[in-house]
Amino acid sequence: MGEAHVICEDPPKEENYDGGYNSRSRKNSLWYEEEIDEGLKWTYSVSRVLHTGASQFQDIALLETQPFGKVLLLDGKMQSAEADEFVYHEALVHPALLSHPNPQTVFIMGGGEGSTAREVLKHKTIAKVVMCDIDKEVVDFCQMHLSVNRDTFQSKKLDVIIRDARLELEDCVEKFDIVIGDLADPMEGGPCNQLYTKAFYQNIVKSKLKNGGIFVTQAGPAGILSNLDVFPSIYHTLKQVFRYVIPYTTHIPSYSDVWGWVMASNTDYIYQNASDIDSIIKSRINASLKFMDGETYSGILKLNKQQRQM
Amino acid sequence: MGEAHVICEDPPKEENYDGGYNSRSRKNSLWYEEEIDEGLKWTYSVSRVLHTGASQFQDIALLETQPFGKVLLLDGKMQSAEADEFVYHEALVHPALLSHPNPQTVFIMGGGEGSTAREVLKHKTIAKVVMCDIDKEVVDFCQMHLSVNRDTFQSKKLDVIIRDARLELEDCVEKFDIVIGDLADPMEGGPCNQLYTKAFYQNIVKSKLKNGGIFVTQAGPAGILSNLDVFPSIYHTLKQVFRYVIPYTTHIPSYSDVWGWVMASNTDYIYQNASDIDSIIKSRINASLKFMDGETYSGILKLNKQQRQM
Amino acid sequence: MGEAHVICEDPPKEENYDGGYNSRSRKNSLWYEEEIDEGLKWTYSVSRVLHTGASQFQDIALLETQPFGKVLLLDGKMQSAEADEFVYHEALVHPALLSHPNPQTVFIMGGGEGSTAREVLKHKTIAKVVMCDIDKEVVDFCQMHLSVNRDTFQSKKLDVIIRDARLELEDCVEKFDIVIGDLADPMEGGPCNQLYTKAFYQNIVKSKLKNGGIFVTQAGPAGILSNLDVFPSIYHTLKQVFRYVIPYTTHIPSYSDVWGWVMASNTDYIYQNASDIDSIIKSRINASLKFMDGETYSGILKLNKQQRQM
Amino acid sequence: MGEAHVICEDPPKEENYDGGYNSRSRKNSLWYEEEIDEGLKWTYSVSRVLHTGASQFQDIALLETQPFGKVLLLDGKMQSAEADEFVYHEALVHPALLSHPNPQTVFIMGGGEGSTAREVLKHKTIAKVVMCDIDKEVVDFCQMHLSVNRDTFQSKKLDVIIRDARLELEDCVEKFDIVIGDLADPMEGGPCNQLYTKAFYQNIVKSKLKNGGIFVTQAGPAGILSNLDVFPSIYHTLKQVFRYVIPYTTHIPSYSDVWGWVMASNTDYIYQNASDIDSIIKSRINASLKFMDGETYSGILKLNKQQRQM
Repeated sequence: MGEAHVICEDPPKEENYDGGYNSRSRKNSLWYEEEIDEGLKWTYSVSRVLHTGASQFQDIALLETQPFGKVLLLDGKMQSAEADEFVYHEALVHPALLSHPNPQTVFIMGGGEGSTAREVLKHKTIAKVVMCDIDKEVVDFCQMHLSVNRDTFQSKKLDVIIRDARLELEDCVEKFDIVIGDLADPMEGGPCNQLYTKAFYQNIVKSKLKNGGIFVTQAGPAGILSNLDVFPSIYHTLKQVFRYVIPYTTHIPSYSDVWGWVMASNTDYIYQNASDIDSIIKSRINASLKFMDGETYSGILKLNKQQRQM
Repeated sequence: MGEAHVICEDPPKEENYDGGYNSRSRKNSLWYEEEIDEGLKWTYSVSRVLHTGASQFQDIALLETQPFGKVLLLDGKMQSAEADEFVYHEALVHPALLSHPNPQTVFIMGGGEGSTAREVLKHKTIAKVVMCDIDKEVVDFCQMHLSVNRDTFQSKKLDVIIRDARLELEDCVEKFDIVIGDLADPMEGGPCNQLYTKAFYQNIVKSKLKNGGIFVTQAGPAGILSNLDVFPSIYHTLKQVFRYVIPYTTHIPSYSDVWGWVMASNTDYIYQNASDIDSIIKSRINASLKFMDGETYSGILKLNKQQRQM
Repeated sequence: MGEAHVICEDPPKEENYDGGYNSRSRKNSLWYEEEIDEGLKWTYSVSRVLHTGASQFQDIALLETQPFGKVLLLDGKMQSAEADEFVYHEALVHPALLSHPNPQTVFIMGGGEGSTAREVLKHKTIAKVVMCDIDKEVVDFCQMHLSVNRDTFQSKKLDVIIRDARLELEDCVEKFDIVIGDLADPMEGGPCNQLYTKAFYQNIVKSKLKNGGIFVTQAGPAGILSNLDVFPSIYHTLKQVFRYVIPYTTHIPSYSDVWGWVMASNTDYIYQNASDIDSIIKSRINASLKFMDGETYSGILKLNKQQRQM
Repeated sequence: MGEAHVICEDPPKEENYDGGYNSRSRKNSLWYEEEIDEGLKWTYSVSRVLHTGASQFQDIALLETQPFGKVLLLDGKMQSAEADEFVYHEALVHPALLSHPNPQTVFIMGGGEGSTAREVLKHKTIAKVVMCDIDKEVVDFCQMHLSVNRDTFQSKKLDVIIRDARLELEDCVEKFDIVIGDLADPMEGGPCNQLYTKAFYQNIVKSKLKNGGIFVTQAGPAGILSNLDVFPSIYHTLKQVFRYVIPYTTHIPSYSDVWGWVMASNTDYIYQNASDIDSIIKSRINASLKFMDGETYSGILKLNKQQRQM
């Protein structure tokens, strides 16, 4: 007997004892899957679960992923990826601030992660940033675990308020040079929720902007095959309220899609040429930008034929 | 303008504001994927990450999964699933204990999860169970988070030792009625590691069994298309050392495979008929078994033609 | 410039020119995914699409898969895998034929693939096999492309009828020693369709069995965590009609589940012991069986405690 | 008995009989998975396998997919998706042709699919297009099955040659206004293969361009997180050979990445402004373009800061 049978006479090459019965020779892994559309999935490997938490609103998790580094999830939804959040946040913040002649005060609706405030605080002209997010646990979680934003949360210029941004903006007496919408897409709660309505822009946002103030908001997917319920509707809604409205887009790898933003103002200085932008960056920003410069700025403002036909 | 454009006049059906920019209308989920073989994957949905920890040996995680309830992972490897761990642990423990006329003392190599000890302690005859696992954090983690084993870890009869099971067994002067191998497959550290060698069975395990003692070990995958490096080699290795060696198998849903175990002894009373097993269960076990009884016992001992040809 | 830049001076190691623009260095593959349950997926790699066809009832495809060899799909549903179809078909056919003292005529409901007839024709006693499948294209496709069944379709003893099996059985005057149900699960068309009703068994199947005849049918998933709507209901329905009803199960790797069958008769000789089965196989079957023998037979007939409690 | 048991008295709601044993109540589907990077997958649902073929070089398949319509695969690699191939092909063809004052003759290396020739033939100035692809079966397959290119393959102006494009270009005596590289990435056969070397551009491509001729080639992934081995190396290699070299990029949804192309010439008229491009399109193109116009052209030519730093 035993001719073909393995009789284990020998000690092993290496000890490999994990006290469990089941470390089979099978490969195991954790994957984060995003169903971008029916029959279309975007999936990436999760190497470690770093931290988990929960608030009255949602579960919070910070994952270490293979392609995108640390990823922040709220209720299982990807909020931000270490590898490319700079693209989203530089695109959200700098076009508006660079277009404004002297931005000193900024109100951020949402943005509890801290990255939007981080980009705003790179501008020397900034005296005060109000970040108003409804979820205290998210803010605390990010302050504790997102090392890239640690200094931001320390900043004397940052005023963090835990409240519904709409109510806070409604009540506050102060006006701002820049109001930034760093909120969930309106699709979630119906065709468009109260932070994306004409009434909200007309009665609240507009009235809280100083003369020459600029409003900018993220505006959801904007790719050639994207579901375009959000981007065009935000654009056309803002067109009802502001004289100058500029949509712009760029590709965010971790979303596997092109993303859209819309800037709005009643002052037309929001159009700038590339070289002006470069000199403004040099004079006003004392940190380095990884994504934004004059050429980038003038490129992302040019939508392709498909996007413009929306 | 705007004929086809959504102008957001209306308030939303429901507030849905999560303070993040990116809760898109995309479905997101976390999946645990096991590569059972090249080109063959077994994947299940993870609804929540319940607890995470780490030891000097490995990462530890407890996940809530959709198909299998709570799942324990060590270094990303599935150890045990709430939905069917009873099948694995009843099959590991009861055939040997029910075959022995009066099992009083048991040594468990590994088994830090506590479920193997739980099944052993269902036998009224048991006076003492030694559970020897190398990883203290795993034992503490399971004691804290696996509520199903809470009473087990409280038991006066349970003696938990944190050490390499091989060294502990080597050093201990006591002998046991039953020795249970609840360890990782030998494939991990090479063709077969020191807890599966002929020398280990011959010089250590056998010498720590009382007269009529029985050794039983999990023996890896045993299905018709499984990688059969482990099961046959454990069987044939034990045949070199013990007079009576009985392989047996059953399907474990969460592994998506048939699993194997091997019982070995120098006394031939380990063959029992179904009705004897049923009466032994009635007389000795004061808890209910979900999987094991006489009919089950006699069924799992019968391998099919393919399995026997290994 | 160019210090860090690749300037391509050299010819390539190997030509690799495929006339397309897009053979990027990305790995690509085709996967067949079966959603076994919500949040539970069984997925395997498809190396080639071998043949495709279509009938009035369904699409037909034969795929080359990595783990299971050639796989037959009907309307995207896996029907049979080269690697382990022998387990399903030997388990469907031989217990009934081996239990019968002298099976000469067999009626197969469905079975257009040919594998069920193949197993039946291994029995020397067989004089005639009627295979009645509703889908001519499936039968033609399998006859052309499933080389393993080529001889079967050539057999003089095989009578292939293209028709609804229920109507055919109703109309035919002949009676049979064995009737085999190789049909879709009744779940598809509601709680149970006309080929699984008490009325069908009572009025049609039973009346077409010769004295001592045996009916056997596949009965769907039968694992510990399987959806058990089918297996128990077929068992209990047959119990209303036949005196002796025997459920049995075994694991089918390519389904990643344990499968069930039910044998029914009014004669109790369908219980056999292992050694009898072995001698019957020796005397009656002139081909080799890969899965079935006496030990296998007596093993698969023993359900575990969970299965019996259904 | 039977209290909890389903006894099937009733006929089914609907017949559902497919003559197979195994149409279980499980959902089944075919998926095409692209491993974009380690731990990052792009997966889409395949609703039907439309056509399959094979050549001496590769397998050919045309799949019907849920998110991207018909998809052409060569050796399992995605070549082209019905939903957005116009983006790739308009971006490959029109910038070069629109930059040239009077493009009459074009040589396409590869492009067997026919879509590149289709875009070229939209220009009224074109007198002759040579498409040189090595794989006859691919050309025949696309001619037969890609209805969108049917007219293109009928065109009197199209000259299809089945041969290695490098050898053909080397031997042909004619010179061209435009040479288009619609080939596999050089990464496949090593750091860069003979169709992407400085020697090839210098000695062959350049010498086959008429005065003021333009060479353009696809240049692989060009996103912020893309593997950038190809795009920069093609750019820097062409800079060694041509006086004016223009890289440009845009997002291709079905690749889930930003893609790059590089135009090269010794004449600097290849820089155009948006309004010039629009008027050239109006005067020269008698078909409609879905993606390209002046604004699009000037946008895709502006790389962002990250892309320019490559």
